[in-house]
Amino acid sequence: MAAGKVDIFDTTLRDGEQVPGCKLNTKEKLEIALQLEALGVDIIEAGFPISSPGDFESVEQISKAVKNATVCGLTRAVQKDIEVAAQSLRYAVRPRIHTGIGTSDLHIKSKFNSTREDILQRAIQCVKWARNFTDDVEFYAEDAGRTDNDYLAKVIEAVIKAGASVVNIPDTTGYCLPYQYGEKIAYLINNVPNIDKAVISCHCHNDLGLATANSIAGVIAGARQIECTINGLGERAGNTSLEEVVMIIKQHKHLGLHTNIITEQLNPLSRKVSDTMRMPVQPNKAIVGSNAFSHSSGIHQDGFLKNAQTYEIITPEEVGADSSKIVLTARSGRSALAYRFQNLGFQFNRNDVDVLYNEFLKVADSKKEVEDADLSLIAKKYQSNVALA
Amino acid sequence: MAAGKVDIFDTTLRDGEQVPGCKLNTKEKLEIALQLEALGVDIIEAGFPISSPGDFESVEQISKAVKNATVCGLTRAVQKDIEVAAQSLRYAVRPRIHTGIGTSDLHIKSKFNSTREDILQRAIQCVKWARNFTDDVEFYAEDAGRTDNDYLAKVIEAVIKAGASVVNIPDTTGYCLPYQYGEKIAYLINNVPNIDKAVISCHCHNDLGLATANSIAGVIAGARQIECTINGLGERAGNTSLEEVVMIIKQHKHLGLHTNIITEQLNPLSRKVSDTMRMPVQPNKAIVGSNAFSHSSGIHQDGFLKNAQTYEIITPEEVGADSSKIVLTARSGRSALAYRFQNLGFQFNRNDVDVLYNEFLKVADSKKEVEDADLSLIAKKYQSNVALA
Repeated sequence: MAAGKVDIFDTTLRDGEQVPGCKLNTKEKLEIALQLEALGVDIIEAGFPISSPGDFESVEQISKAVKNATVCGLTRAVQKDIEVAAQSLRYAVRPRIHTGIGTSDLHIKSKFNSTREDILQRAIQCVKWARNFTDDVEFYAEDAGRTDNDYLAKVIEAVIKAGASVVNIPDTTGYCLPYQYGEKIAYLINNVPNIDKAVISCHCHNDLGLATANSIAGVIAGARQIECTINGLGERAGNTSLEEVVMIIKQHKHLGLHTNIITEQLNPLSRKVSDTMRMPVQPNKAIVGSNAFSHSSGIHQDGFLKNAQTYEIITPEEVGADSSKIVLTARSGRSALAYRFQNLGFQFNRNDVDVLYNEFLKVADSKKEVEDADLSLIAKKYQSNVALA
Repeated sequence: MAAGKVDIFDTTLRDGEQVPGCKLNTKEKLEIALQLEALGVDIIEAGFPISSPGDFESVEQISKAVKNATVCGLTRAVQKDIEVAAQSLRYAVRPRIHTGIGTSDLHIKSKFNSTREDILQRAIQCVKWARNFTDDVEFYAEDAGRTDNDYLAKVIEAVIKAGASVVNIPDTTGYCLPYQYGEKIAYLINNVPNIDKAVISCHCHNDLGLATANSIAGVIAGARQIECTINGLGERAGNTSLEEVVMIIKQHKHLGLHTNIITEQLNPLSRKVSDTMRMPVQPNKAIVGSNAFSHSSGIHQDGFLKNAQTYEIITPEEVGADSSKIVLTARSGRSALAYRFQNLGFQFNRNDVDVLYNEFLKVADSKKEVEDADLSLIAKKYQSNVALA
């Protein structure tokens, strides 16, 4: 792994697919898996094989079809889960088993009615079981976001010793602030003696709207894998949005990081996932929302028309979106109006536009958006008045 | 102002309303303004009065109706804008004029074809004009996120000297990383000699999905006002989500910060804004999405049913959402199935549930969500088989 390469681990088909209403059949999962591979993701988490016969079948089919990306199956720290996952992954060119257990005191007590020492042993054991089937074993410390750092470091050291090559530090409940999550990753790097033998992975949830920022804080601190989903789908408020972390890494070159994602495919794949899973993307979603490249206030439109970079840090082409839109509303100004008239083939000078602008505002105050048809009407009326005068 | 009090400046009716398709009439704006006041926001940015006669009218009506919150109008650094804004705000109990100008080199050159020295003078001038009408003047340094810190500090010092009591540091293009935005605020605190005479405000855009994290980094560094909107509406990918920053501040008490927001009203107002502006909220939106409190994977459901805190850091009641949902899909487990059977009045023991679970999975693999009707069918079939045996 290059020093600055961040692996993109997509879990749309596992953490995304478990969302109410998002369930897919095997054919749909296979289609999305192949498009994720074409997008350039490094690891595809294809499902949770023991959860149902349908999910097992999907992981098996994806294992057969995907050639370049690693295919991963989720398990609990349970021998049967791991055996079933290994079985479903047996045709994969690069199989990975993702196993683990809750490590916060809350999970240890409430979920497992257990002790830190017992959980440590179960963590070691599940990694050893998984290593019987593949060299590529990822361990997750569920609720790591709320796990005591000292105990977490002990668990991580032990699972790396047991053979885990990737260690996932999930902020399962979306609780951490970015500086806290970054400090947790830095703590592990400084306090786990064998940490250089594994890749640290960020898996952040979005309950407080911080999943993207936490994942970026994680890679700044030294993590080199981000677990994410298309459109930020996932349990409750969702996971880290793949499109957001990828574009942050691309935009902020000073971080010295990069991914293999072909960014021009981000919007097409976002639409495919939204349609197939029937999960709408809100218009004001970063990168992939329908308004992400729309400019409607007069101040912004004027600047944008003089130099797009005044209000755009990403071009729509770079992420496969439709080109930037200049939308006319009652908040638009004369520059945008002149621009849209010009696009419609009307040539007006500055004085013309001043007069036309007042006519435009009357229409704009009465409706949400002024369309080309409204503009043509305004322009033609003006031209005939001028001709008569 | 108390040391840890963060003022919530809502701009749903200005930065949110300028979004394509979101335009509201005066009556609708007035209704939302009164609900924002009831929610406990400190400042309502009611519009951009010079932009259109309709917007002027709305700001005037809101100024008359709102009694506790400050009512604010936006302007450019243009005398006429400021006079019109002052006119529209003349009935307000607490009027604020929000004026400013672009300060990044890109804005200075591309938008204004000007120089740093000239822009500095125009910044001072606009604050002085505004102070002729009200003591409460907020200055914005547009594109502060990409403005050289040294020059920004000079501008901020000068506008405070000219009478600005709030200084807004917008990340207009959503470019900054949280640590960068926090450092920018810290730089101003350390390098603007009269900074103690003004409140620093964060106005962050969400183009890279970082608006919430940047605003929180800002208040951690010492800012004491956040500009935000309901559901994160706003130009392009939107603004900071009011509901997210408010709940982060409430959850992370160790920050020593608080707001006046009545959080139980967050979901009702989110729905009102979404309906009135016809802007859908995606199901996986933090705090206000329809899935924000839904649990569907077996691992999560089992933990949640043992102790809700294992997977929930906020209760739905706290933010006025419907109670947590246990949704049954092919990723659900035995605990959730037993829980849902119990809710339907069926009493099954562990062995029963083991048998029923396989029947459940057959149904679940073939559809997105298993409903009460499906469960009753499974349960009754099982009971009649048992009775016959």
